[in-house]
Amino acid sequence: MIVSALLTSVGINTALCVLFFTLYSILRKQPSNYKVYIPRLLAEGTSKRRSIFILERLIPSTSWVAKAWRLSEEELLAVSGLDGVVFMRTITFSLKIFTFAGIIGMLVLLPVNCWGHQLKDIDVADFVNNSLDVFTISNVNSGSRWLWVHFSAVYVVTGFICMLLFYEYKYISSRRISYFYSSKPQPHHFTILVRSIPTSSSSSISDSVESFFNELYPSTYLSHVVVRRTSKIRSLLHEAKTLYKRVTQLRSDPTQKKYKHGGLFGLFGQKNNIIEQYERKLEDIEENLRLEQTEASLAGEETRAAFVLFKSRLSAATAFHLQQSVNPTHWITELAPEPRDVYWPFFSESFMRRWISKLVVVVASTLFTMLFLIPVIVVQGLTNLSQLEVLFPFLTSILTIKFVSQIVTGYLPSLILQLFLKLVPPAMEFLSSIQGYISHSDIEISASNKVLWFTIWNVFFATVFSGSFLSTVNIFLEPKNIPGKLAVAVPAQASFFITYVVTQGWTSVSSELFLVFPFIMSLITKPFSRSDDEFEVPSIPYHRDLPRVLFFGLLGITYFFLAPLILPFLLAYFCLAYIIYRNQFINVYAPKYETAGKFWPIVHNSMIFSLVLMHIIAVGIFALKKLSLASTLILPLPVLTLLFNEYCRKRFLPIFVAYSAESLIKKDKEDQNDPRIIEFYHNLVTAYKDPALVPIQFSSNIDSRHSPLISQG
Amino acid sequence: MIVSALLTSVGINTALCVLFFTLYSILRKQPSNYKVYIPRLLAEGTSKRRSIFILERLIPSTSWVAKAWRLSEEELLAVSGLDGVVFMRTITFSLKIFTFAGIIGMLVLLPVNCWGHQLKDIDVADFVNNSLDVFTISNVNSGSRWLWVHFSAVYVVTGFICMLLFYEYKYISSRRISYFYSSKPQPHHFTILVRSIPTSSSSSISDSVESFFNELYPSTYLSHVVVRRTSKIRSLLHEAKTLYKRVTQLRSDPTQKKYKHGGLFGLFGQKNNIIEQYERKLEDIEENLRLEQTEASLAGEETRAAFVLFKSRLSAATAFHLQQSVNPTHWITELAPEPRDVYWPFFSESFMRRWISKLVVVVASTLFTMLFLIPVIVVQGLTNLSQLEVLFPFLTSILTIKFVSQIVTGYLPSLILQLFLKLVPPAMEFLSSIQGYISHSDIEISASNKVLWFTIWNVFFATVFSGSFLSTVNIFLEPKNIPGKLAVAVPAQASFFITYVVTQGWTSVSSELFLVFPFIMSLITKPFSRSDDEFEVPSIPYHRDLPRVLFFGLLGITYFFLAPLILPFLLAYFCLAYIIYRNQFINVYAPKYETAGKFWPIVHNSMIFSLVLMHIIAVGIFALKKLSLASTLILPLPVLTLLFNEYCRKRFLPIFVAYSAESLIKKDKEDQNDPRIIEFYHNLVTAYKDPALVPIQFSSNIDSRHSPLISQG
Repeated sequence: MIVSALLTSVGINTALCVLFFTLYSILRKQPSNYKVYIPRLLAEGTSKRRSIFILERLIPSTSWVAKAWRLSEEELLAVSGLDGVVFMRTITFSLKIFTFAGIIGMLVLLPVNCWGHQLKDIDVADFVNNSLDVFTISNVNSGSRWLWVHFSAVYVVTGFICMLLFYEYKYISSRRISYFYSSKPQPHHFTILVRSIPTSSSSSISDSVESFFNELYPSTYLSHVVVRRTSKIRSLLHEAKTLYKRVTQLRSDPTQKKYKHGGLFGLFGQKNNIIEQYERKLEDIEENLRLEQTEASLAGEETRAAFVLFKSRLSAATAFHLQQSVNPTHWITELAPEPRDVYWPFFSESFMRRWISKLVVVVASTLFTMLFLIPVIVVQGLTNLSQLEVLFPFLTSILTIKFVSQIVTGYLPSLILQLFLKLVPPAMEFLSSIQGYISHSDIEISASNKVLWFTIWNVFFATVFSGSFLSTVNIFLEPKNIPGKLAVAVPAQASFFITYVVTQGWTSVSSELFLVFPFIMSLITKPFSRSDDEFEVPSIPYHRDLPRVLFFGLLGITYFFLAPLILPFLLAYFCLAYIIYRNQFINVYAPKYETAGKFWPIVHNSMIFSLVLMHIIAVGIFALKKLSLASTLILPLPVLTLLFNEYCRKRFLPIFVAYSAESLIKKDKEDQNDPRIIEFYHNLVTAYKDPALVPIQFSSNIDSRHSPLISQG
Repeated sequence: MIVSALLTSVGINTALCVLFFTLYSILRKQPSNYKVYIPRLLAEGTSKRRSIFILERLIPSTSWVAKAWRLSEEELLAVSGLDGVVFMRTITFSLKIFTFAGIIGMLVLLPVNCWGHQLKDIDVADFVNNSLDVFTISNVNSGSRWLWVHFSAVYVVTGFICMLLFYEYKYISSRRISYFYSSKPQPHHFTILVRSIPTSSSSSISDSVESFFNELYPSTYLSHVVVRRTSKIRSLLHEAKTLYKRVTQLRSDPTQKKYKHGGLFGLFGQKNNIIEQYERKLEDIEENLRLEQTEASLAGEETRAAFVLFKSRLSAATAFHLQQSVNPTHWITELAPEPRDVYWPFFSESFMRRWISKLVVVVASTLFTMLFLIPVIVVQGLTNLSQLEVLFPFLTSILTIKFVSQIVTGYLPSLILQLFLKLVPPAMEFLSSIQGYISHSDIEISASNKVLWFTIWNVFFATVFSGSFLSTVNIFLEPKNIPGKLAVAVPAQASFFITYVVTQGWTSVSSELFLVFPFIMSLITKPFSRSDDEFEVPSIPYHRDLPRVLFFGLLGITYFFLAPLILPFLLAYFCLAYIIYRNQFINVYAPKYETAGKFWPIVHNSMIFSLVLMHIIAVGIFALKKLSLASTLILPLPVLTLLFNEYCRKRFLPIFVAYSAESLIKKDKEDQNDPRIIEFYHNLVTAYKDPALVPIQFSSNIDSRHSPLISQG
């Protein structure tokens, strides 16, 4: 790629970013967009809808940048929990390492690369076309002593990253522990989830749970809640909700219609009839629902799973850590999630079924990852002009225009790829949800991992080996040749990934600010929704955003010594991400759950993988550049890195799995002296209740709030 | 190999076995050999030394075979614990699978193999030389439909073995649980070992253990024993023991000397002087030892490890399962071994040191395994005739005799290999002992694994690829080609492994009966030892014998469909092993510890590995025989086998790691009603005492038992 092409790309994307920023600065001030841009503040009630029009609202301002910049970590913790802090620290962590690597890269490696004349020597014609390659390691002469500079840079940066990883893991561990110490008694600390409860013909599930845990933990067992099958109730609930929405919509219409239709009584009467009909139907459903709910909570089909509540954190932890039953596949315990975090719909309860569904999901997501590009290529194949003309004959006339055809052939394939890629996080989330996890947080953690590996495989390796599925897999079946193949293929894609950072990175993060999709959705739905309608505050989809940030980290780490030119663009990306995500945490997202930092191990693992991948490439590069001594001397580095990782796994990972006896007992002792604990126990018993079993009352809601007419009639 | 060569080998080894059996039948009846052949019975006192000479003693008898045959499993359990039962069940398990595979192999596969004429077609000259190959799969024509018989045999036998593995695992699990239920309160169920205790300047280790566990488990914490450094005392003890032995030897000499020297008073007086001198020295050392012991138990250097004793099994298990400290590398807990099983000498206590020593040992044992053959080949290279003549010039005249030189060149290399191989189990045991295990049982379990992998690598793979270390490693670096390479190499070694079973297997098991080494040792030391000397009952070295049995299992499983002719010889081996090991359990070995069946997972894993290896070979073979459909259809088999293994790991393995809460609580409740538990607690406090700190009194022993002369003087 030539420099001018890169500059064009940078120019276009900078303009796009500026456009998004300006638009955001203006649009966020319009009260009609509050639901999109500051839903969290709206829900908290800290920001009120100002309907007075002032000129200021039309002038872009940067006050939000300053506000996001000033946000302290404690404030962030209060606003979006430890998970938000961990996410932001991932970005600051990347900023730190790429600042360090950037200084080395730009001041040391880049001059060394430019100094070489390997490319000039080989082929002048090719050299002109690929002028960006002058800045890469490819330009350093084979066997040159200057390569030792790159060698040292690899060692220094690896050391720096590992040191930083260690302190970061330590810091987040300590945050997690202090978060636990400072927390009030929380239901999920006193609760475990038991699955694979053995069934017996003589007693119900509830009875056997009661007798089993009463027998084992007579002094600390408190109560239990058997999970019931509520899929039927859930569908009834859904029906009722849809009807309720429809009725309220119809009911709120008259105020609008008054202006439009005046006293068109015939229509009004007819509409009233429809409303009454709907309401009767709604009441019927509700009646039905109430019956089902009472039936379910009394004698509904019990699943073989139950939440078991204890009087102390230590006994809950004991029940979790110890194998309960003589048969290890019965009475399987796990830590209960927060009540709000429980994923009720899918409660796979038997050991075998969970095991098989897990296996199936692992195979399915691997196949999905491996074979993803095949349907994409097929669909892209369908979008050539002649195919389109056959499928949609009416387009023929438009497609003959040169500009349109250029757009179609140039952008359509890329657009299709982007659309397919947008489907990946939800698809992976769906796969994780049927894997047998019982909480939204676990599902998102698992989906994050899946999406990360998906991205690494389909964006990094598929691009690098720019080949078919089979050829890429073949490379991994010959482990001996991997470094060599990578050393040839990875530097060749340097300019692609530099533009990737600019186009994908910058755009994705500024469209995150502008919230393109929610904004368009709100524009479409605005005419149909009432302004004081209830709305949900979104939560940040970690499984979409975290893998993206980590993938840019991987690009930076693997390319920093190959093509240091990538680093300034990456730094720009992380700076944008830093400001924008902080702003979004303040204004948009509210946490749906609190894992207290369980996302960090994903970040750590991803960094270690990036480092080892970088080392493997380095081994290959130095061998390719005929500096076999350096190639050999790199070998201890991945070994040391993996040992470091192993140490961190032992030193820090257990903290993220469960709390230690020491801290549990400390918290339990505090509670013993607290008189409020009795009340907490009282609330604990009802904390884990399937939302499908909570009584609802839509019809009376309508009556009391909106329709004095009917309530009187 | 031609049939006659195999028959010769079988003949020689059968003769050797018969010779060993006959010799054993006679020698075991001689009172002078009781210490070698029935030490266990001697120690129990059930067999008394009969010094009356009767003719019967010189006639070989088979009564011991009948006795070994009749031994029931319950008797075996009483005699040698659950570990002995597991070892014997490994042999019966192998007998079952190879009887089944043998029937299929001899009645179905062998005729099919002979029916083919692949080898005859290719090369007649080669065919005559390798007439044994007629019985192998190599003789079946390429692409022949008869290969589907082999295909079905692979499926059927795999299914049979997996089924048997499942029931065996289930049976041994249930034995383990019922063993626990029927056991009396045992110290190691109430105890955990804590390591990496953080040091503080203000308090001693003992104080911090006391305060830490008193704080965490105030109601169930009983006491603790800090492990102290006793290497100095141990060396003093060793010195004292050696001196004591010498003195008693000298002291017992006069009775012999009386006959020899009569009244040679000068010598007698001098000898008395020496004895007195020794005894004074012994007393000095003992005095020193007592001082050291008191010092050590009061203020000796504490290691950062302690045994912590609890009042209930459940709290010990809780303390083991839960991470104790906020820092996961401090207060690391593990289940305590039985007091007699503790390996006192090497108490690595800090987390880092243990981790590093573990890494070093893993690397060392891998290197040892990988590179073992190199020094062997070097040493074998030194043993050619000309080298020997240079090294030992005085041998020149002997080496010129043709017979001697034939023996030297023919047997010396093989003898050297055997001697080196004899060193492997002790070497691996040594490596395991410095790996940081704290019990003899853990060390032997770990050594068993190491020896097993060593044997598989150095006997199976090194023979199969009959090449250098590098070429073998290279094959494993190209995973795609492994099945193809194995398919070519493995059948080619069929006749070698058939003779291997006959020579190595049959001889090893009959020399186990005859106890060649102990017998020779007893012949050598007999003149110097008194007949009523104390002697130790040996324990069976599982890490030597179990890998051997498992390796023959691997040979049988991998070769049963390639060369079914191996099966009768293997069955003969396992029948011999069945009778001989039962006999040895009755007469020779006494258990040194009780792991309650923890060796079984090794057996299970080894069988699964053998099966998967067999499948990989089958994939290669069918591809080589141009039956690619069969080659593809085999592929699900290793996957299913590994899934089965995974299921077993989940279903049974936890039972072998720790006991369940259910069973622990059941046992604890039983104890609560037992008045003897107070006494047990009392004994528990002193159960874990370093034997180096137990007071000894050698000199007074001598005085009272043997030397009224000195005690009066």
